[in-house]
Amino acid sequence: MSDATQILLPCGFQFGATKAGLKKSGRTDFALIVADEPASAAAAFTANRVTAAPLILDKENLRATGGLVRVVAINAGNANCAAGAPGLAAARATCEATAEVFGCDPEEVFPSSTGIIGVPLPAEKLIAVLPTLAASLGQEFDHFQQVAQAILTTDLVEKTAFARFDVADAAGTVREVRIAGLGKGSGMIHPQLVPHATMLVYILTDAALEPATLQSYLNAAIDLSFNRISVDGDTSTNDTVLLLASGASGVAIGSGSREFTHALTHVCTSLARQIVADGEGISHVVELHIEGAATDADALQIAKAIAHSPLVKTAWAGNDPNWGRLMAAIGYSGAQVDPDRIDIRFGDLQICRDGGRAVEFDEAAAHAYIAKPEFSISIQLHQGEGSCIFWTTDLTVEYIHINADYST
Amino acid sequence: MSDATQILLPCGFQFGATKAGLKKSGRTDFALIVADEPASAAAAFTANRVTAAPLILDKENLRATGGLVRVVAINAGNANCAAGAPGLAAARATCEATAEVFGCDPEEVFPSSTGIIGVPLPAEKLIAVLPTLAASLGQEFDHFQQVAQAILTTDLVEKTAFARFDVADAAGTVREVRIAGLGKGSGMIHPQLVPHATMLVYILTDAALEPATLQSYLNAAIDLSFNRISVDGDTSTNDTVLLLASGASGVAIGSGSREFTHALTHVCTSLARQIVADGEGISHVVELHIEGAATDADALQIAKAIAHSPLVKTAWAGNDPNWGRLMAAIGYSGAQVDPDRIDIRFGDLQICRDGGRAVEFDEAAAHAYIAKPEFSISIQLHQGEGSCIFWTTDLTVEYIHINADYST
Repeated sequence: MSDATQILLPCGFQFGATKAGLKKSGRTDFALIVADEPASAAAAFTANRVTAAPLILDKENLRATGGLVRVVAINAGNANCAAGAPGLAAARATCEATAEVFGCDPEEVFPSSTGIIGVPLPAEKLIAVLPTLAASLGQEFDHFQQVAQAILTTDLVEKTAFARFDVADAAGTVREVRIAGLGKGSGMIHPQLVPHATMLVYILTDAALEPATLQSYLNAAIDLSFNRISVDGDTSTNDTVLLLASGASGVAIGSGSREFTHALTHVCTSLARQIVADGEGISHVVELHIEGAATDADALQIAKAIAHSPLVKTAWAGNDPNWGRLMAAIGYSGAQVDPDRIDIRFGDLQICRDGGRAVEFDEAAAHAYIAKPEFSISIQLHQGEGSCIFWTTDLTVEYIHINADYST
Repeated sequence: MSDATQILLPCGFQFGATKAGLKKSGRTDFALIVADEPASAAAAFTANRVTAAPLILDKENLRATGGLVRVVAINAGNANCAAGAPGLAAARATCEATAEVFGCDPEEVFPSSTGIIGVPLPAEKLIAVLPTLAASLGQEFDHFQQVAQAILTTDLVEKTAFARFDVADAAGTVREVRIAGLGKGSGMIHPQLVPHATMLVYILTDAALEPATLQSYLNAAIDLSFNRISVDGDTSTNDTVLLLASGASGVAIGSGSREFTHALTHVCTSLARQIVADGEGISHVVELHIEGAATDADALQIAKAIAHSPLVKTAWAGNDPNWGRLMAAIGYSGAQVDPDRIDIRFGDLQICRDGGRAVEFDEAAAHAYIAKPEFSISIQLHQGEGSCIFWTTDLTVEYIHINADYST
């Protein structure tokens, strides 16, 4: 990659990936992100009550350290979920071996796993390659990209996002703050993160922040990004978003920084959209604008009903402007609606007005519009001021092929 | 058909169907069920807040008559939903013309529609064929079957169910009570009926019951049948279940009749299962047994999360015993669960014990079992006494083809 991308990598981190033999494809499947010094950490995990072993350990570790992480150890090819006590033991063994290699506490290691559920993780495969992997780390863009590649499962493309801003101190010295994010996710995508992610996302910054402050920035950004996307409505057992702040820029960020909020939200939103755009088998990305709902919560409820309706999603797959299916989903969403006041637009095309077909409805134009790979649908409810933007996909024959193949 | 089936048709009703030109296929699409005298009626309608025009009128009419119906007028090929004031006017015009033909009040007519949403119903097509249709009515099984055929849309087969029982009076005279039901539904199937149906179901009995009593029998039977099925999780705008009692058997049924409850539940459950078995594009019918939930409501919530998970449904389509996807759906259902105490069986095969893969898990046997067209999955949660049985389907490439074809 060019220098332009390298410039954006936050200082204070090293990266690397290798093959541990977990992916049937034989691709790289074990990655490390190592902070030069223990970094402030904020994290969010799936709301699924069945959670993978690494997430259980991550929560324990963050509590034990008060929010500090030295090493992030990520494997793909095995989710280490529903694997009972052996699963938890495998996660612990990985942490201990990693801690030994890097001379830190096992609690300063943050393990992550993604892949098939219900098969115990062969920790010995990870541990065997740790020394070689540790020796190969670097801070160049190539190293960062190795991590972005190794964590992919059914994803087709790497997902990375970057932001930067300058901060001048009282003496007029200008310093640069950098944020870099990487993520994976393609199916089982409907993150419902708590405090408010088979999505794994790692965001790094060289700003200096206290863990609690970092967490509140992360929560706000997640609410506008990862909690506003759905591919298939299946909320994973392994979803994780981790934000690490190394402080290596020398810039301290307190609460209420508009620049940091803006930059972090940009990185999160970009990664969220990239995950949707790489959804399993999809042929359309749809941006839903729900407006005029009684509350923001109602708007979100309607967006989710639409995003999870097989009939709506299959119509999109067929470029079919069947807005009646949208009406049905709005109706059963549970949100407050007056069917006779619903207006629907596809892009700038008026489709439905006052709950019935708009007089200017042009079927051929509507069909042509939603044949595009990306399109937007706006729904105005005339109930109040609630609104949301939500990103989702169609449901295709290819999705079925990907997920119906006998793979256990 | 043979005499054996004719015997089961309740007395007091006539049936008929014809072609009104609503179905593109050119098949019969307009049907009538006519009670000799106004019949006691109980009904249940979709919980979708966007409801079709005929349902709005049905509720008005049942209120106006105190629960009496003379004629049921059903069209397929057009749902008459999201069609605004013209849609409601079309439903009213159909009722008025029907009332004139049969010499009853317009309020004694119960209109039903199923088909595409968002296109105003051409009532004139129905009205034009009414006189011929009225002249063709009869009470033979063939006539009944004509109705069962005419109301189908994407359904592949007719759905009918029958029950009967004898009642002896104080003088020892034995009289027969008959119940016959017919229904349609294949896609957009996840009925959530209130008071507790693109599913249309009509059930007829010659028992004599007051409307209020009839309604409480219907509510109880629906809770164990139509509200326990899902094909695609899309709750329709037109779902309707209508139960009519002609009283022509001369047998009065009060509240608390075990025979009537049993016979009605049999008919409802049979029709519900037939609808699932004819789900759009399906290749498997799955019976879910959720046991040991904290409450019955929790059990139902878990069943629905599983029944609506694209990842679970596509695994079934591929005969893939990927029980990890079941664990994920259980976890995000919102029900109270302890992941480490979940047991899963496929038929008699133990798959998961205490939240992890069972030691006796036999992948080949599990694969062979779920390759059957019908199979059962039992999930034991060890949280309490809550349970439910729920019927659902897989999600296949064929479902996508059926629903993604450009059809508006």
